[in-house]
Amino acid sequence: MTENTDVIFVGNKPPMSYVLAIITSLSQGNLKEITLKARGQAITTAVDVAEITRNRFIKDLKVTKIAIGTAEMPAREGENKSRMVSTMEITMTKTA
Amino acid sequence: MTENTDVIFVGNKPPMSYVLAIITSLSQGNLKEITLKARGQAITTAVDVAEITRNRFIKDLKVTKIAIGTAEMPAREGENKSRMVSTMEITMTKTA
Repeated sequence: MTENTDVIFVGNKPPMSYVLAIITSLSQGNLKEITLKARGQAITTAVDVAEITRNRFIKDLKVTKIAIGTAEMPAREGENKSRMVSTMEITMTKTA
Repeated sequence: MTENTDVIFVGNKPPMSYVLAIITSLSQGNLKEITLKARGQAITTAVDVAEITRNRFIKDLKVTKIAIGTAEMPAREGENKSRMVSTMEITMTKTA
């Protein structure tokens, strides 16, 4: 299980760069599972990445798990309160 | 099942307006289940709404289902191609 999973952190690059990272990861050896992790505005990008990969590139990829949560971010400079930010994890598994 | 579910469409209002809508819905009668629907950038707001409601207001609310998908949007004026947009549904159920 552990060796067959890869984690990709989704940030503010264009969705296609993460789609390519997934395709590259999955074409290597015996990797069957990819987890996308994102927080804040990147959550939307993560969903886009999952949908684009599944619909256009790797048709036998299934979303097997989606989880949401909250993380605490340290205060930005000049602020004295930490902020809460939403997080999301999308796990996709190759069925074939 | 059908009569105990309420659907809230999340758009570009501040998260707290949707949190209030959920609290209002769930305080009425025998409603046990709420589904948040969002697309595009509002997906991040929907996750924020779910997390704020669960962590700060209704502690016995559990996320029971999360689904992602793609929808086709009609072309905007001046464009001739329809666009694909990601969608998300979060279902939360009251356990108590």
